[in-house]
Amino acid sequence: MGLTLADDLLGRGLQRIQREIDAAFDAVLPVPDDARAPLVEAMRYAAIGGGKRVRPLLLVTVAEMYGGSRTAAVRAGCALEAIHVYSLIHDDLPCMDDDDMRHGKPTLHKVFDEAIAVLAGDSLHALSFELLSSREISPDPFIRAELVSALAIASGHNGMAGGQVMDMAADEEEFDLHTVTRLQQLKTGALLGAAVEMGAILGKVPEEARGHLRNYARDIGLAFQIADDLLDYEGDEEKAGKALRKDEEQGKATFVSLMGPEKAREQARALSEQAIGHLVQHGKEADLLRELARFIVERDR
Amino acid sequence: MGLTLADDLLGRGLQRIQREIDAAFDAVLPVPDDARAPLVEAMRYAAIGGGKRVRPLLLVTVAEMYGGSRTAAVRAGCALEAIHVYSLIHDDLPCMDDDDMRHGKPTLHKVFDEAIAVLAGDSLHALSFELLSSREISPDPFIRAELVSALAIASGHNGMAGGQVMDMAADEEEFDLHTVTRLQQLKTGALLGAAVEMGAILGKVPEEARGHLRNYARDIGLAFQIADDLLDYEGDEEKAGKALRKDEEQGKATFVSLMGPEKAREQARALSEQAIGHLVQHGKEADLLRELARFIVERDR
Repeated sequence: MGLTLADDLLGRGLQRIQREIDAAFDAVLPVPDDARAPLVEAMRYAAIGGGKRVRPLLLVTVAEMYGGSRTAAVRAGCALEAIHVYSLIHDDLPCMDDDDMRHGKPTLHKVFDEAIAVLAGDSLHALSFELLSSREISPDPFIRAELVSALAIASGHNGMAGGQVMDMAADEEEFDLHTVTRLQQLKTGALLGAAVEMGAILGKVPEEARGHLRNYARDIGLAFQIADDLLDYEGDEEKAGKALRKDEEQGKATFVSLMGPEKAREQARALSEQAIGHLVQHGKEADLLRELARFIVERDR
Repeated sequence: MGLTLADDLLGRGLQRIQREIDAAFDAVLPVPDDARAPLVEAMRYAAIGGGKRVRPLLLVTVAEMYGGSRTAAVRAGCALEAIHVYSLIHDDLPCMDDDDMRHGKPTLHKVFDEAIAVLAGDSLHALSFELLSSREISPDPFIRAELVSALAIASGHNGMAGGQVMDMAADEEEFDLHTVTRLQQLKTGALLGAAVEMGAILGKVPEEARGHLRNYARDIGLAFQIADDLLDYEGDEEKAGKALRKDEEQGKATFVSLMGPEKAREQARALSEQAIGHLVQHGKEADLLRELARFIVERDR
């Protein structure tokens, strides 16, 4: 399964959510008529267009499976994606990964400058919690507070940012498979987990079913990262829209370096099947989650 | 009024809140026993010790004036201070103000490195919203969601971060007094305003009184920034604990450059008296706010 999926359920789902998230960012980020204009233009450059929007798709799909409003879920998905986008902007900075290309276009600090890139990331970070705490998400303040809590925990030092620091340490220290797994559960897994959790909050999913969805999220999170390592190892830079082969150059421990590419691919596929297994109590309404689990390990970008 | 205030109301208030905020950061930031340790140590280095804690003091004072719990207010004050601290970390980065000293000690990126400084700022940013959305702040989710909303709006592109970008533009463009005022209302005023707003949310302050408190916050915010410009112009670097005379070197429009130091000092004092005027309906319980309004324009760091 490549990326020309227009005719299947997942392809249509991705195209629709991509349009919706672009429209949501466009609506909440009007360019002001003052000296803040470059900041908001930078936020728009990074946030609108590009990006698979896998996290919002997960969030919206779970919310809708349980009768949550799509409008509210898209808004929450936009907040979640704002965190993902800010993390990419900061990760690409010269003092971090020093990347020049992202989603097939120059990175933000290349087009604007580093200071604007830092502040555009910070502003998207704040925007995320502004969106989640606004009454337009839900008239129920409990839901708003729970959404904020889930995303804040997943993105901070006990989640994504903590995983990023572990990832930097992986350049210097020799990590084993256990530590690389833990690292990736934080760096990538936490936000994918938040996507499912936030969808479950909006859909008021009962606790037992929430447990199955959490397990699904954990397995696709790990599968996603193994697939990312495989892409870095053997992918096509043009399709990926960013520089590859960086892990190997840096001599960094990854799933591929620790398991070898074949075993890694096997493991990713096994995790994908295991993820689908957690959805056994769900019917057709979970088909998109099943397709997504398969897509995640077979994607070429 | 200098900073040896131990015997008066404000001096005791500052000492107490400084202890409380340090203790709150210490409690929520245990150093983990894994590769994230440097991240959390960096967060602690920047967040604990140093800083006047004016924003938490404002928040806690307003909340207590209306019967809000001090424990909850200190926690919210810690969340607010986390945003302030993250903004200082990012402002000090080489690609921003490139400052070496802060609160009399080397800046975070000097002690750790730039990547850790970016991520420690990001993690304090997320921590802030984690704290505000947690049930320990209030059993009422409406209060939690309102606190998040107030702080997110005040810190993003329509608040503090937007003001920071305008401030960067002030290095290049010739701003007039109107634009400098707007800039400072965002850069410094928004977070001081959030302090009062968050205290009012916790104290469930009625709308009319909230209006008076907002006016108080607006006036002390501007007075605070004029005093900051005066400090930069004529202050003592050792007492300030950071490099001064940067505005003049950069030829940047400030209240002092636009009004002259004498007129600026007059204006700051007038704003301080005007701020105190907004508290006319309050009794002795607002004395600390009155002392704070006077202190803000007379401080020497």
